[in-house]
This record gives sequence, C-alpha cells and structure tokens, in this order.
Amino acid sequence: MTEALRVGIAGLGTVGASVVRVLAEKAAELQRQCGRPISVTAVSARNRDADRGVDLSGAQWFNDPVALAKSAEIDVFVELMGGDEGPARDAIKAALDAGRHVVTANKALLAKHGVNLAETAEKKGVLLNYEAAVAGGIPVIKTMREALAGNSVSRVFGILNGTCNYILTRMEAEGLSFEDCLADAQRLGYAEADPTFDIEGNDTAHKLSILTSLAFGSKIAADDIYLEGISNISQADIRAAASLGYRIKLLGVAVRTDSGIEQRVHPTMVPTQSVIAQVHGVTNAVAIQSDILGDLLLVGPGAGGNATASAVIGDIADIAKSQPGFQHGPVFGRPAKELKPYKKAKMRSHAGGYFIRLTVHDRTGVFAAIAKRMADADISLESIVQQADSGLDADVKTVVLVTHETTEAAVRRAVEGITKDGHLTDKAQVIRIERAE
Amino acid sequence: MTEALRVGIAGLGTVGASVVRVLAEKAAELQRQCGRPISVTAVSARNRDADRGVDLSGAQWFNDPVALAKSAEIDVFVELMGGDEGPARDAIKAALDAGRHVVTANKALLAKHGVNLAETAEKKGVLLNYEAAVAGGIPVIKTMREALAGNSVSRVFGILNGTCNYILTRMEAEGLSFEDCLADAQRLGYAEADPTFDIEGNDTAHKLSILTSLAFGSKIAADDIYLEGISNISQADIRAAASLGYRIKLLGVAVRTDSGIEQRVHPTMVPTQSVIAQVHGVTNAVAIQSDILGDLLLVGPGAGGNATASAVIGDIADIAKSQPGFQHGPVFGRPAKELKPYKKAKMRSHAGGYFIRLTVHDRTGVFAAIAKRMADADISLESIVQQADSGLDADVKTVVLVTHETTEAAVRRAVEGITKDGHLTDKAQVIRIERAE
Repeated sequence: MTEALRVGIAGLGTVGASVVRVLAEKAAELQRQCGRPISVTAVSARNRDADRGVDLSGAQWFNDPVALAKSAEIDVFVELMGGDEGPARDAIKAALDAGRHVVTANKALLAKHGVNLAETAEKKGVLLNYEAAVAGGIPVIKTMREALAGNSVSRVFGILNGTCNYILTRMEAEGLSFEDCLADAQRLGYAEADPTFDIEGNDTAHKLSILTSLAFGSKIAADDIYLEGISNISQADIRAAASLGYRIKLLGVAVRTDSGIEQRVHPTMVPTQSVIAQVHGVTNAVAIQSDILGDLLLVGPGAGGNATASAVIGDIADIAKSQPGFQHGPVFGRPAKELKPYKKAKMRSHAGGYFIRLTVHDRTGVFAAIAKRMADADISLESIVQQADSGLDADVKTVVLVTHETTEAAVRRAVEGITKDGHLTDKAQVIRIERAE
Repeated sequence: MTEALRVGIAGLGTVGASVVRVLAEKAAELQRQCGRPISVTAVSARNRDADRGVDLSGAQWFNDPVALAKSAEIDVFVELMGGDEGPARDAIKAALDAGRHVVTANKALLAKHGVNLAETAEKKGVLLNYEAAVAGGIPVIKTMREALAGNSVSRVFGILNGTCNYILTRMEAEGLSFEDCLADAQRLGYAEADPTFDIEGNDTAHKLSILTSLAFGSKIAADDIYLEGISNISQADIRAAASLGYRIKLLGVAVRTDSGIEQRVHPTMVPTQSVIAQVHGVTNAVAIQSDILGDLLLVGPGAGGNATASAVIGDIADIAKSQPGFQHGPVFGRPAKELKPYKKAKMRSHAGGYFIRLTVHDRTGVFAAIAKRMADADISLESIVQQADSGLDADVKTVVLVTHETTEAAVRRAVEGITKDGHLTDKAQVIRIERAE
C-alpha cells in the first residue's frame, strides 16, 4: 500500500486552494498517518490563469470537470464546485460510474441527489465521503455514520449556519437591529451579497436533511422541512428571551415522533445556561441524542476555507487508508437501497413549549381576553408577563407568554383567536422552545 | 463479507453486560450498518454464575481470558476486565500475537503499555481500538486519529473525569464542602469507595497521556505528568473565582511549547462564559486546537455502562466493516515505531495567567509587601482584590490576585517570598488559568 493515492480536484476557490496547499504542506505527516502518499495529480476550475497562491504545476489541467472525474489517472475525485445540478452532479456521477471514490462538500447536491449517488457508490464499491457538507470542520458525519453504530437516534439538532448565528450573536451582544448585523456580516464576508439562502434557513435545511437521513435511516427529504428564517427576529424578542432565561438561535431540528419524523428549521429559544446557548458567532454546533450513548454535542468551525479543507482532507485520508476496493460502510449509514421512505410528521402536531410575544392596545380586558384564548386552546402557561417597552407608544403594551408543553395546532388556534379579537397592534410573534442541556 | 464477525468478551461487569445486551438488541441494525452480523461467540469473567441480565447461552465460556484471547473461534477480542498488568495485559498481548483484533476500554493499561501493544498490532496487521478508554462515549479517539488527519494539534484539554466534575459542580451550585460532595458522589455511585485515583487526578492523567500521543505523535508518557487533584479546592476558591468571572474545573491539558510538551492535570480557572465552563456534573468534554480546523469541542457522557458500551460497539462495528487483514491506519495515528520520544517541557516554564488567593493578617503594609513580591518576580497583575470573608476571623483578610501571563517559576518565587514575609495565616492557594472560548 505504498502507491500514492491520486487525487483530482474540481473547483479551486477558497476551499479547493486550501486543500491543495494543506495536502502539499502536510505531505510527510499525511503519508505517515495513511501509510502512503497523497498527491494531487489533476485539477479543474473555471479560470486557468487565476493566481490561487498554490503550486499546481504538478497537476494535469482539465477544462472539463467531467473529463477529470472520468480520468484513469485519479483514484479520488474531489468536488468543490458547488451547485445542485449541472457540472457538479455530472462530474460526481461520472466519477462514481468510473469507479472513482468521491469526496464532496456539496450539501445542496447531496440534499437533492444524495440517495441516488449513494446507490451508485455502493453498487460500484467506492466511497462517497462528505464530512465537509454539514457543519464544516465538525466531524459529525463520521460520528453519526461510524461512532454511533448500534445507537438509535431520537433527536438531532444544531446551529448549522454561521451567518445566522453571527447575526443573532451580535444582535444580542450589541443591541443592534437585524438589518445592521446583516450588513456587517456582508462587509466581513460572513454573508453573501444575496443572503436569502442563509437567513431564510435553506442552507440549514440542506444540512439538516443529511443529518436526518443518518439519524433515522430514512431517505433524504430536504423539500419536506418546515422553514422559518431569522429576518423577523427583533430586539424585542431577544430582550424578552433574555429576561426569561432564554437565548434565540436558528436551529435545525430533526425528531423521531410517534407520527413520523419532524424536520424543522426556525428561530428557537434555548435555555441561556445550556451549552449550545454559549455557541457564539460563526461557530456551529450539533447535538445528537441516542439511546445507548446519551447526549453528545460537537462544537466547532462551520465554514471557512481551512476548516472545510480539514474535513475534506480527513475524508481523503480515510480513503488513503483503505485498501483498493474496500468499502467502509454505507454512505448514509445504511445501504442506500434500504433507506426507508421519509414519513413526515405534521408540523401541527409538533409538541413543545412556546414563547409568544404580543403587542397590544393598553385597554381593560385585553389580558383577560388573551388568557381566555389560551385556556380555550387548552394551553397551560408557565408565565405571562406584561412589559412596558420604551420603544413603543404609551398606549401600547407588550405581553409575553411562555407555555408549558402544548402543540403547534393549539398555539395557532389561540393566536388566531387573539388576532381576531382585535387587540393586537402588530403581528403576534411565536418562537418555539427547544429543550437543551 | 456476509460471514459473522465473531466477538469474544473478557469481563462482564456493567460495561461488558451492556455490550452483550446492545449487540443482541441491535443485531439487525448493526448488520445493516456493517454489512455482516456481529455475534458474541465467547465470554470470560470471574464468576460464571452471576446473573447479569443478559443471555450468554450462545457463547462459549472460558475461565481463562488468555485462552479466550487465543481462541481460533473469535475474530475480535474485547477486553473489559481492567487493570494495567496481569490478565488484561496478558490477554490483549495473546490476542494480538494470535492475529485477533482487539477492542479495549482500559486507559490504565494503554497509558502504561499502549505503544508496545500498538507495535504488535501494527506488525500483525490487526486493529487495536480503544475509543472507550478516553472520555467514555465521546468519539475523541476517532476524531483525533481519523478526522483530524493532516492537522497539527497545538493544544488538547478537557474535563476527563466525571467524579471530579460532579463534585466541583455541586460545590459551586450548592455551596457544599468538598468532603460533603465527595460523600454524596460515593453514595450515588459516581465515586469509588477509595476515590484517590479520581480526585487526585491519576485517572485524568491516564486519559490525557493517550490524547497527548495522538495529538503530537509522541510516545505515551503517563508518568511524566504534572499532577494536582481537587481535594484542596475550597468554597473560598469557588466564590472568588465566580466573582472574577471564572469557574473551577479539573482539566487535563497537553500543550506543545517551544521547549517540549506540557502535560498537566490540575484545578483550572476557565472563563464562566466559555462553553467548557457550562459542562456540568459527570459530563466530560474535550477541546482540540489544531492549525487547519481551528477549535473543536466535544461534550458527552464520560462514563457509565451504556455510554462506554456505545464506544466499544462503535469500535467493534469499525472492525466489522473492515475486510479481513485490512489496517485502518496506525493505532496512535502514526506508526508506533515512529512515535517520537516524549520531550517534557519543564513545569517551571509553564506560561499563563494565575489566580492566587492569600489569607493574611489584617496589618498595615501587608498589601504593599505582597505587591512588592509580585513586582520583584516581574509579575504584572490584572486585578488585586482584598475581600472580607465572613468565614474568617475579624483580623484576617483574603487577598485575591489575578496575574497577566507570567511563568510558573515567577509565581512560585513570588509566593515563596510572600510566605517568608510571615503575613499569611494559611498556605497560599495557586490556581492556573486556562484560555478557553
């Protein structure tokens, strides 16, 4: 096993360039760890002439990533182009069909085509590794796919988008508005020019859909995820949360329930004293609850060229340690052909605590009307606080309710009733509470 | 690869019984994940007649674990007896010599003989897996050995002993004395009848020595660890720490410095707002800093039959997924023969911040004398606080100093001087501060 592992890389942006650089700088160490050299023998990118600060002279250049993927001169095809269709998909498919191992960081592609690609990989007896696709450098795929063997996962949840966590962290720490924090995130390169995909939760949903499949042995169902972004989180929510012992995080949550699997992405109240509440800025975190192990939490860098490169290189090293033709377990933990159809639990039956913030006219009877609507919906309250808010008119008050465990359906019914009563001056704000250690 | 993986287990205490039970209960799921069945074909324990609540009727009984280890009827020998010499060592050695894979949870044994056993395993081309030996169910071995390939680790530290963390958590939360918390821990089964090994830091040191080898590619040097336990931590320390924004944890810390590797186990001040400060009770946590990935933190159950069994089963599953004769990378990340001699950094050159609590006679000039000793040792202070302590006599005061980064040698010199000055009514308390996110 002293022959070099030949790596072809398609996509030489920040991550791709980091991978090339680290593989060169750490060549001796990686050889010691893997038992054989790893060498980049072929690359492909859009612009051949860009200066990427890395030496590509030893690698064959391909204009066409699909041609690179099929090349007999590589053992592993590393896809770092992005995009859930087109060249990325074509190239990965071509590589697997040609019997090459594949490493990818492409969550959107896996969320859409992961199961099909896994079937091909398993049929061909090659590896499809994707540690970098979820939570960047955090080894959550390895943990769920390998370390938790035999465990039945009941819930997996996490902070999976650094942009959102950066914005929420700064909003809380500095009292800034969502818009100001977003603008700063864009200036610092933590958010895209069009940030919709991050702040509306789509990126989190892609990552969650992969974790859900690993957790429950179900087919990936990224389109069946309940989605709420963070753009309507206000300082009023953050302050009220803090006063009640909560912090707001955008979580992706997948839970096994009696009626199916809940997948949801939404702003979430977590107890201020919980470990995950201390995860600040662009850092990511994934919590996994399982029957044998118990509660596990992994915290680390969720993005960035180097952190992502670290996960890609870990995936490549695992392949380098494998003997040719060796299969290190199924791509999504269970054979792709045996993944169960995704059975969706209705969001209306979601059970949990709720934070409800109401802005109301300061009239006699409002409080009583709200309490009646909650009682009619069979919702029992942990607390109900009427707050004066300096940002509001004198005749407007804030009422914050925290419920005991109830259902989404009951909360929607109650809020609908309260809205109909005509006391609200603004749309009711409803934020789910998640248990966390 | 449809033949069953035949597992022999020596040691049927809490962990061993859990492993047998989970392998039976999750047989179908494990087969799906691993591509072949896993079956317990042989067992050994001291008492054949004990009721362990598990069905052992399908397994061959061995009175002698070494005979079990050598049996041609097993593919994997699982050592769960404990002890750093005697039967555990003999049996593991016999298993490796006979070409069997080995899974063990035995930190003490690995700390003492790990490198030799790894050499044998690597020569024989079999696996020696030991995820359960460090931080129980937390997949830190897999993370360091596989996921961090190519990373240069600069520091690894963690809460590695649940007993100590349980005691410190309750001392802080309930204002109880060390002795009372220890007694409770013993009553609840979190501490041994003779707790010395846990509370004096030896258990943490064993685990740390394994992480150090994985981090730095050095030989295991468990006897070369600076060791301080938690038995002299008082409520005065915990209260003073809290007032300064710190929490006290027993940490094992390994750092690469210019003069060698620092390995130390001692009560440590970590910032109250850091993630690791929120790790309470018997939970463990390991933080790893590396050059490519950055900061990673893993939090989870560090002990208990099921959590430990989860790690053991993960190790067995990895072997089940391997083809016969396949070698999944070296035991300690680098080939055992190439592990570098351990180069110890002197504790006196340790650099960092210090918390120093002095109990002094309330006399004119004491404050000045202390300040002069610190200045003479070239120690610059972040804060110096004189506290009245209700638990002390009226003519006795507490002075708490927090230093900027300085060295162990300087602090020892200053404290020696202060002690000589004759103002102290009690031994000076010195607690190191560790940076943590």
